[in-house]
Amino acid sequence: MCKLSLLKKVVICLALVGMIAGTAQARRFQRYRGAKYVFLFIGDGMASPQIHATEAYLAQSAQPDDPDGDLGENSLGSAGVSLLNMSSLPVVGLQMSYADNRFITGSAASATALACGEKTSIGAIAMDSTKSVDYTTISELAKAKGMKVGVVSSVSIDHATPACFYAHEAERGYYWDIANDLTDSGFDYFAGGGMKGERIKNGKRYYAGNKAGVADPNATPENDPVQYARDNGYVVITNKTDLMNQVPGRKVFAYSKDYLDGSWALPYEMDRDEADVSLAEYTAEGIRLLDNPKGFFMMVEAGKIDWACHANDAKAAIEDTIAFDEAIAEAIEFYNQHPKDTLIVVTGDHECGGLTLGFAGTGYHTAYEILDNQTMSYEKFDWTLMSEHKAAFGVTDWDNATDMNDDIKDKMLAAFGLIYDDLSVFQQQKLEEAYDKTMGGFGSEGRQEEDKILYGSYYEPFTVTCTHIMNNLSGFVFTSYSHTGVPVPVFAQGREAYRFDGKYENTEVAKRIAQAMRLNLNN
Amino acid sequence: MCKLSLLKKVVICLALVGMIAGTAQARRFQRYRGAKYVFLFIGDGMASPQIHATEAYLAQSAQPDDPDGDLGENSLGSAGVSLLNMSSLPVVGLQMSYADNRFITGSAASATALACGEKTSIGAIAMDSTKSVDYTTISELAKAKGMKVGVVSSVSIDHATPACFYAHEAERGYYWDIANDLTDSGFDYFAGGGMKGERIKNGKRYYAGNKAGVADPNATPENDPVQYARDNGYVVITNKTDLMNQVPGRKVFAYSKDYLDGSWALPYEMDRDEADVSLAEYTAEGIRLLDNPKGFFMMVEAGKIDWACHANDAKAAIEDTIAFDEAIAEAIEFYNQHPKDTLIVVTGDHECGGLTLGFAGTGYHTAYEILDNQTMSYEKFDWTLMSEHKAAFGVTDWDNATDMNDDIKDKMLAAFGLIYDDLSVFQQQKLEEAYDKTMGGFGSEGRQEEDKILYGSYYEPFTVTCTHIMNNLSGFVFTSYSHTGVPVPVFAQGREAYRFDGKYENTEVAKRIAQAMRLNLNN
Repeated sequence: MCKLSLLKKVVICLALVGMIAGTAQARRFQRYRGAKYVFLFIGDGMASPQIHATEAYLAQSAQPDDPDGDLGENSLGSAGVSLLNMSSLPVVGLQMSYADNRFITGSAASATALACGEKTSIGAIAMDSTKSVDYTTISELAKAKGMKVGVVSSVSIDHATPACFYAHEAERGYYWDIANDLTDSGFDYFAGGGMKGERIKNGKRYYAGNKAGVADPNATPENDPVQYARDNGYVVITNKTDLMNQVPGRKVFAYSKDYLDGSWALPYEMDRDEADVSLAEYTAEGIRLLDNPKGFFMMVEAGKIDWACHANDAKAAIEDTIAFDEAIAEAIEFYNQHPKDTLIVVTGDHECGGLTLGFAGTGYHTAYEILDNQTMSYEKFDWTLMSEHKAAFGVTDWDNATDMNDDIKDKMLAAFGLIYDDLSVFQQQKLEEAYDKTMGGFGSEGRQEEDKILYGSYYEPFTVTCTHIMNNLSGFVFTSYSHTGVPVPVFAQGREAYRFDGKYENTEVAKRIAQAMRLNLNN
Repeated sequence: MCKLSLLKKVVICLALVGMIAGTAQARRFQRYRGAKYVFLFIGDGMASPQIHATEAYLAQSAQPDDPDGDLGENSLGSAGVSLLNMSSLPVVGLQMSYADNRFITGSAASATALACGEKTSIGAIAMDSTKSVDYTTISELAKAKGMKVGVVSSVSIDHATPACFYAHEAERGYYWDIANDLTDSGFDYFAGGGMKGERIKNGKRYYAGNKAGVADPNATPENDPVQYARDNGYVVITNKTDLMNQVPGRKVFAYSKDYLDGSWALPYEMDRDEADVSLAEYTAEGIRLLDNPKGFFMMVEAGKIDWACHANDAKAAIEDTIAFDEAIAEAIEFYNQHPKDTLIVVTGDHECGGLTLGFAGTGYHTAYEILDNQTMSYEKFDWTLMSEHKAAFGVTDWDNATDMNDDIKDKMLAAFGLIYDDLSVFQQQKLEEAYDKTMGGFGSEGRQEEDKILYGSYYEPFTVTCTHIMNNLSGFVFTSYSHTGVPVPVFAQGREAYRFDGKYENTEVAKRIAQAMRLNLNN
C-alpha cells in the first residue's frame, strides 16, 4: 500500500483540480471583466501633421521649454521634438476615416464610425447611411451595463462629434433635436462650450435648427432644451466654480458662457482667460464625478483644432492640441492609479486643412518659433481688431493708402508679430491684395476660383493672409479649408490596448473599444 | 510501501525536471535565435500621404480594379480604399525622421538612422554628426554573424539610402568612394539602377564625386569601381535575363542600363517597359540568391517615390508606390513559407513634397481617377515631348501664340489627358505663364520667390504646372519641392514584429531590428 490513504489522495486530487479550475475561472473572470474605466479622446481635425507640428513647435519655440530662447536661434530647427503625452502611449494604430458616400469625411460620419462602429453618409448622427435606422452607440451600451457615461467637448455640446455619442438624428444641423436627445440619453456628465440648440443672440432666445424646419426666434421657455434637461434631473452648471464644487451623485450638464458671443465654444486656448474653463478641467471634473465602482466611459473631444485648421491658423491649432494633450494627461494620471482597469484611446476624426510640415518657399528650413509672435487666434483678431478697423474705415475709405498702412503696420500686423517692412515684396503684395478684398473688393460676382484658393469661401482675406504668411515664414502650409483624407493615428494605453495596433477602418475604433469593454456592439 | 519503486520515482522525477528544463531551454533557444530572414523596405519620400493617396487612387481609378469605370463615376470618391500589402501587416508604428542638425531630414541622415540606430547630420553616410567616426550598420553585423546580405534600390546603388547600409563617407556626394565601398563591404547581393560613381555621359566614362575633389572625365579603367567589384569576386550583371539565370553562390552586383541617359535609376514604373527590370523582380531574385541556412538581411529601397514627389508628380509617385508594394509582396510570399523565422519591416525615410489628400479648390470632393489620364511621368515628358518642343521652337519663337496653342493642345497637354478648352480661365492663365517661363522667360535675375513657389528651383515650369493642374483637378496638393517633417509609418510582420509598435525615433528602427536579429548594435 502506498503511504497516502485513499482519502488523502482524493483530497489532493480535488485540490489540484480546484487549483486548475480556479485559475481558469480567474482567467475567465479577467476575460469577462474587460476595461472598467474607458476614455476615448477625439481631436477633431487632428492627425499626424497637427500632432507633430505641435511637437516640433514646442521644441523649436522659445516657450515654454526654452526660456533663454537658445533653441529659437537654431534656424534649421534641429531642436528635435518635444513629445506630447498622447505620443508616449505604447500602442499605435492608423485608422482610415472615409465615409460611406465621400472619401473626405465629415465630423458626423466619422464620429458615427467612432461611436457606433459603422460607416455612414455625410451629416448623419449615429444613424445608417439612408438616415432611417438608429445605430447603437458604445456609450449607450456602457450605460445599459450600469457604467456611468460622460460626453465632453470644447465646442457646443450638440455639435456633430459629441452628438454621435448620445443622439440619433438624420442631420447634424438639427441642433434643437440633438439638444433634447442629450437629456433623453440619461448620461451622467455632459460638459461643453455653448449649446447651438439653445442660444441667445442679440438678447433673444433662439432655438436653432430643428427637423420640423421651424425657425423660432421668439422661442418660448417651454421649448428650452436646457430647461428640459433640468426638468429631467440634470444639474445645469454654467461656470467653472460651480462645477468644481459639484458633489458627485446627480447628473450634471455643464456648459460655458458663449465666448465672444458667437462660436458657442470654449475660447481658443491661446485666447483663454483663467476664468474660462479648460478642456483639461472639464476632463478632471468628469473623472471626479463619474468615478464609481461600476466604472465609466468618457468621450472627450477637442473641437477647435478642426476650426483652427479650417481657418489655416497653425498657432491656434497647435495651442489647442496642447490643451487637448493636457486633458489626456488627466486620464493618464487616473490610469496610473488604476492601471489594470483603465483603457485610454486617443485619435482624431479626420485631418483638417491639409497641414504639412514643409513649404516650397522655405525648403528644408523650419523656424516654427516664429509662431511665438502670434498673440491671438484669427477668431479673436476678427472679432476685435478687424471688427474695429472695419468700423473705423468702412468701404468708402479703404483705398486710402496712408490710413491702411498706419493701421496695419502699427496695430493689426502686430497681433501676428509681423512687421510690414521686413516682409518680402511678394508677401507685401499678397497682403495689400488681401486688404483690398477684405475691405469690400470682391465685386458683385463674389469670390472667384483664385479667391477661394487664397482665402477660402468665407474667411477674412486679410486675416487668412496674415496666418498664411506666419505659417510660410515658419515652414508650415495648409492646402485646403476643408478636411482631407490622410489616415489618422490611434494611440492607446492600458487594459487591452493591444487591440488598437495595425491599420484599420475608423469603425474598428468603436468595435475594439466594445471588445475591450465586453459590450455587444451589433449594428 | 507505495506501489512505485524508488527507481521508478526517480525516473519520473527526472523526466519531469527534464521536461521543464527542456521547455525552458527551448524558450531560451527561441529567444537566442531571433529573426533569421529579415527584410527592411524603405520607401524614399514615402509616408502616410503617399501610401493612402495610392490606396484611394486604386479604389477611385477605373484601373486596375474597375474595368467598367463605375467607381470613376463617383464624384465624391466614396469607393473607399484598396489597401496595399504594406498596410495589411499587423503591427504599425510611427517613426520621427528629424536629423541631428535639421528638423526636415535628408536621405543620408535618415538612412544612417535606419541602418545604424543613430541620428547624424545632413549628408553623412553611416558616420557620426561630426563626420569623423564610422557607425556600424545592422547589415555589417548581420554579415559578420554569417548571414548573407542584400542591398537593393530602384535608383543608383551608390545613392544615399542604399549607401548607408554598406558605405561610410562624410558626404553623400562622394559617389566614386561609395561605389568602391560597395565592393569592400563584401555583401552578397547588390541590385540597383545605374551607378553615379561610374557613369557614361556623351560616350565618355565619368567617375563622379570623389572625396579627393578630383573631377575626372577621362577616367581610366584602373579606377573603375565596377571593375574593382569584378576583381573582387562579384558577378556584374546588367540585364534582367542574366540576373534571372544567375546560379546562387557567387556575390552578385546587378545594375540596370542608364534609363533615358541621365537618371542612373530604374525608369518610373509608369514608363517602364517589360524589358526593364522591376523592383519586385530585383527583390525576388535577391531572395532566390540570398536564401541559405544561416539566413539573410535584405534592404530594398524604392527611391523614385521621393523623386516624383520632389517634382510634385502624384501619378508617378503613386505608380512607384504600387511597384514598391509589389516588391513587398515577394517578401510576404517568402514569409508565408517561413513564418516563424521571417521579419518584414516596411517604412519610409521621410515624407517628400508635403502631399495632402485634399485641395482648397476642390474642397471635400475628390476625383483621383482623373490621374488615369496621365500617360507618362514628368521625367519622360521632359526628356521626350518637352525636349522636342523646345528644339522645334526655341526662345525666339516662343511668344508665337498660334504655335504654342496648337502644340500644347494637341500633343503636349494630351500626355496628361488635359484639354485646354476644358480648363478654367485661372488654370489656362497659369499654364500660359508657365509656358512663357519654360521657354526662357525668367530674365537675367533667374527664379524669384514666387517662381520658386510655383515651379521649384529647377523644375520645368510648364511640366510642373501640368502636374499641379492634374493634382488639383483630382484633389491632391504638394506644398513643397523638398522633404517635410511629418512622422513616417512603420509596418511590420513576423518574428518579433511586436517590437515595432508605438511612436519612436527613426533610430529605433535599426535598434529594434538589431534586437530581433540578436545583433549587438552599439554605436
